Amino acid sequence: MKKKSISARPPSPPTPEFPARGQCRVIIERITPSLPDAGALLKRIIGEKVTVKAHVFGDGHDTVLALLQHRKQGENEWNESPLRALGNDEWEGEFVVDAEGFHEFTVSGWTDAFQSWLRGFRKKIEGGQDLSVELLIGAGLIEGAANRARGRDRKTLSTWANLLRDGNVPAQERVDLARMPALEEMARKYPDRTHESTFAPAIGVLVERERAACSAWYEFFPRSWGSSPGAHGTFAECEFLLPHIAAMGFNIVYLPPIHPLGMAFRKGKNNSLTPEPGDVGSPWAIGSALGGHKAVHPELGTLRDFKNFVKSATTHGLEVALDIAFQCSPDHPYVKEHPQWFNWRPDGTVQYAENPPKKYQDVLPFNFETDDWQALWLELKSVITFWVAQGVKIFRVDNPHTKTLPFWKWCIAEVKRDHPETLFLAEAFTRPKVKYWLAKHGFTWGYTYFTWRNSKQELTDYVTELTRSECAEYFRPNFWPNTPDILHETLQHGGRAAFISRLVLAATLSSNYGIYGPAYELCIGQAVKPGSEEYLDSEKYEIKRWDWNAPGNLKPLIARLNLARRENPALQRTGNITFVPTDNPALIAYLKTTRDQSNVILVAVNLDPHHSQSGWLNLLITQMGLQPFQSYTMRDLLTGMEYRWYGDRNFIKLDPENPVHVFRLVR
Amino acid sequence: MKKKSISARPPSPPTPEFPARGQCRVIIERITPSLPDAGALLKRIIGEKVTVKAHVFGDGHDTVLALLQHRKQGENEWNESPLRALGNDEWEGEFVVDAEGFHEFTVSGWTDAFQSWLRGFRKKIEGGQDLSVELLIGAGLIEGAANRARGRDRKTLSTWANLLRDGNVPAQERVDLARMPALEEMARKYPDRTHESTFAPAIGVLVERERAACSAWYEFFPRSWGSSPGAHGTFAECEFLLPHIAAMGFNIVYLPPIHPLGMAFRKGKNNSLTPEPGDVGSPWAIGSALGGHKAVHPELGTLRDFKNFVKSATTHGLEVALDIAFQCSPDHPYVKEHPQWFNWRPDGTVQYAENPPKKYQDVLPFNFETDDWQALWLELKSVITFWVAQGVKIFRVDNPHTKTLPFWKWCIAEVKRDHPETLFLAEAFTRPKVKYWLAKHGFTWGYTYFTWRNSKQELTDYVTELTRSECAEYFRPNFWPNTPDILHETLQHGGRAAFISRLVLAATLSSNYGIYGPAYELCIGQAVKPGSEEYLDSEKYEIKRWDWNAPGNLKPLIARLNLARRENPALQRTGNITFVPTDNPALIAYLKTTRDQSNVILVAVNLDPHHSQSGWLNLLITQMGLQPFQSYTMRDLLTGMEYRWYGDRNFIKLDPENPVHVFRLVR
Repeated sequence: MKKKSISARPPSPPTPEFPARGQCRVIIERITPSLPDAGALLKRIIGEKVTVKAHVFGDGHDTVLALLQHRKQGENEWNESPLRALGNDEWEGEFVVDAEGFHEFTVSGWTDAFQSWLRGFRKKIEGGQDLSVELLIGAGLIEGAANRARGRDRKTLSTWANLLRDGNVPAQERVDLARMPALEEMARKYPDRTHESTFAPAIGVLVERERAACSAWYEFFPRSWGSSPGAHGTFAECEFLLPHIAAMGFNIVYLPPIHPLGMAFRKGKNNSLTPEPGDVGSPWAIGSALGGHKAVHPELGTLRDFKNFVKSATTHGLEVALDIAFQCSPDHPYVKEHPQWFNWRPDGTVQYAENPPKKYQDVLPFNFETDDWQALWLELKSVITFWVAQGVKIFRVDNPHTKTLPFWKWCIAEVKRDHPETLFLAEAFTRPKVKYWLAKHGFTWGYTYFTWRNSKQELTDYVTELTRSECAEYFRPNFWPNTPDILHETLQHGGRAAFISRLVLAATLSSNYGIYGPAYELCIGQAVKPGSEEYLDSEKYEIKRWDWNAPGNLKPLIARLNLARRENPALQRTGNITFVPTDNPALIAYLKTTRDQSNVILVAVNLDPHHSQSGWLNLLITQMGLQPFQSYTMRDLLTGMEYRWYGDRNFIKLDPENPVHVFRLVR
Repeated sequence: MKKKSISARPPSPPTPEFPARGQCRVIIERITPSLPDAGALLKRIIGEKVTVKAHVFGDGHDTVLALLQHRKQGENEWNESPLRALGNDEWEGEFVVDAEGFHEFTVSGWTDAFQSWLRGFRKKIEGGQDLSVELLIGAGLIEGAANRARGRDRKTLSTWANLLRDGNVPAQERVDLARMPALEEMARKYPDRTHESTFAPAIGVLVERERAACSAWYEFFPRSWGSSPGAHGTFAECEFLLPHIAAMGFNIVYLPPIHPLGMAFRKGKNNSLTPEPGDVGSPWAIGSALGGHKAVHPELGTLRDFKNFVKSATTHGLEVALDIAFQCSPDHPYVKEHPQWFNWRPDGTVQYAENPPKKYQDVLPFNFETDDWQALWLELKSVITFWVAQGVKIFRVDNPHTKTLPFWKWCIAEVKRDHPETLFLAEAFTRPKVKYWLAKHGFTWGYTYFTWRNSKQELTDYVTELTRSECAEYFRPNFWPNTPDILHETLQHGGRAAFISRLVLAATLSSNYGIYGPAYELCIGQAVKPGSEEYLDSEKYEIKRWDWNAPGNLKPLIARLNLARRENPALQRTGNITFVPTDNPALIAYLKTTRDQSNVILVAVNLDPHHSQSGWLNLLITQMGLQPFQSYTMRDLLTGMEYRWYGDRNFIKLDPENPVHVFRLVR
């Protein structure tokens, strides 16, 4: 069990050296908010306040002063503000993050000679002690402050110091001068910070724009929207979709990869290994002789067409999100240009992606252990900055957890340094610690396990973890009821009722959500085979033809739901949720409220797509800003109906035709 | 509120550099046990096991391997042992601390190419896939292991690699070879750790000897034990006390400072500012023309007498603890020799200790902000090593919280580096964060708030904090029912019953405890004035004359109590406590058990010194290793009486004459 290390390591020092600054007497510990993981970042939205607490203490009885220091990345000087002592050596202060980008903060403290003297001096006055020597000590401290001061202050302090020392001035006058508030105030401006302690390392905060807090995503395959049946759609043709997507209330349109696709090992329809001529292949098999990650698939159009599409989206209030899938078709130019970035097998082929026994022959992963890793990282980063230059600010990153994790920390920091407006969604359907690591090191949002949380208990537990544990400091969940890869069995078997319930849950449990359409609006629920979460005739492998206005489509509902999100600030944050007890396990209900309770939303969802469910809600009436025995009006934002309720227990009934309520408290 | 820093600080880097080792793919986080405070140390007793957990994970699907690494300070190489995967990216391992001193541990991990290949290879066998290229890849990995191996292993691995490649060997035989357990085992001995990640900084553990876990202290003033009335006692005369102290079962005798005492501002009896001729002064006003912290007060004897006293104590199984009080009488030689170590006032005097309006003119504190701080630190350290050289291994440090805190971290590390057997008790009756900081940075034990915790709720809450919160990792409480400075009102008004109760609580709630005697055994309870915790005619300021065998003295009880502690391992640790519910707020009860339940102690104490109290105990029968409806025998270790009990509810009654039970479960 026990064995010696193979490689010699540096020995721990035989004797502890003197600390660098042994005269510094103040200890600073336990800053909150902070994370215990090296380099991890807290997240905030621009304009938010960061309330900081810390333990700050020194030896003995001297007065400790403490400051909160914060700055934006790249600034040389700290912005400083005093911390308030809360008692028990705990201190508190706050700052506002007023710009996008990387910020940092820390805490400094020192035992303040002047404040210590002044406190003792005042007590000695009360105690009737002799003060002559004390006045001389005070004069010396004021003179020190004068030496640190500038301009008029310097002169004033110097004059006061001389007066305190002047034997010709009556003692009582000098005592009165020494305890003058103006003197304390001015001396406080020029403290002696020679022996200041500063907590290190400073704590990083990633500040992002409002869209990071609240977004509604619409994913679609542009190639399915050609104007003639079966033809490959183009960006130009897709521009006509944009007003319709905007009318549904989304604010991000997300496109699967738009690059040239390889022919080698191209997949056929339904993921077949034997494609037919004319099969269009998976958009994620990126790269051909026509180009790689910085090129546009010619069948979609030109780079100019793409830029026009982005501009057109902007005019409709939509941002375009691109898919970043760092992997290559065997035909990708990188394979020839940078063979050292791939894993070569003894048979002279490149190792394709596999998770034995599964094989993905059309996808070559990069070898992040290559000795040429720095060039690889730079090139991958340049892919993102290339698309930033084309006007893209939002990236959905495909499987970031299968690339070396430190790369993402570096890459996102690099991109955001010059483009703090860029936002990144991690498609990391992986183990929790990996998912959370990505969130702590730069990703704006992450996909979640929402899809697989369907019962009341599962949903309550999961949302509680996301909003009440430490991960609320760094992980912004993005709830998707479906994706092109994931058609959950709830949707396969639940019909339209399930589509409505899961949509409303996603859009109200999380302020960031999205759907893959039009499969979602059209309630497409057929899987390729029993037990699979893959769509039948998946759009990943073929061009589809959608009848967007088919009967029963959810477009009007989606529009009302997104309008409710836009008009109600309580739905624009995720953490402000309180689950409301119900007496029926098929009924889930929760409050979303703004901090000032000016906007109160109550959502109730029937989780049973097949039956009516009814029950009593045990409303948390004071959290709604109401009195215990008050009557009030609840307006359903999806139907416009109003209900007059009384007190903290109210009955609801929801049937599969209309399985949700999104109420606003009208009062 | 917001202002710019006065001093320019180093800017944060404008761009994140490449990380030093970007090919390292494994992340290591959240090691437990560990503390979030820079440089803080966990504590363990020699021979104890440290169970370590960590989060270790990498990207993708490759197999991660992880090691626990530990070493003693000064060792060049790590001892390594594999960590076991617990699932969910959590890992666990353990090591034993087998020597006193400073240890450190950390965790390493890497994605293991051979293990990843082997796992895939086995799955491909099951999947019936073609293995010819796989065998060549495996051969390359085995050859890599061979290159890292030595001796016979190198040759074996090399032979296997060649066989796997050999087209003349039938494919099936090569497959069988590749999945042979012996091959895996040997390859595992020589992993490719090129891209290993290691958690930093390593976590420090302070390992101390058994005495640190369990000690019974007896404090007395040697000068009160002169053979003729009123004469100053000597070390030689005090040797006769030692067998009696040993007979009471103590294992540490602690002496107040033994150094020459100053005359300047000497305190008289009862802390008077106007001493009479012949007043002996406070032992804490250290230093005179006769010497300072490295000298012995001539009235106590010579250094040789002291060393004889230490030797004599050793023969009785006692260790001598000295008082380290880093402060000076105005007569101390340091004042003339090192004036720069003191705070000089404008009137040419040295600033004495004060906490306005209180003044301590006989005590000068050091100025730890002196520019000559390194010399000051070295000199203070040399005081401790001087006494170590005289045979002292245990130090009770007076008011460590009024000296700069980083000094203690440095000083204790320096002393323990060469003398890991030294132990330090912090007399830090101060705010919790300061007290705990000292414990985290080197002090073996700390005085506590036990004295001021008297009700059942107060005692339960406090002991729960000490044993169930994170401070159990670093803070070893030392419970003292009295000290020369503290005579709590419970003892002032509670009479002998209170002295018995508080003694038993101290000695059984905490495995480290002590008393100031003989004031304690003689149940001396008279304070200098109402509302004060100072003794009347305090021994701090005068020579006392004690009648050690006065009627009602607690010596026999103390002897039985300390014997119970010595004979029962359950009483030799502090953390192994469980409070037992009782239905009477004046009755407190708790179990102390060894991990294997072979030793089970039940303590019950009547907290009301004036009345009999009775009630039902709700025993936690399974924690005692008993069956729910079993009868069993409880023996009172203080009286020898046995009781036959049944089940989990038993009645007890305790009166002021005999207010305690210390039961052992006899079964």
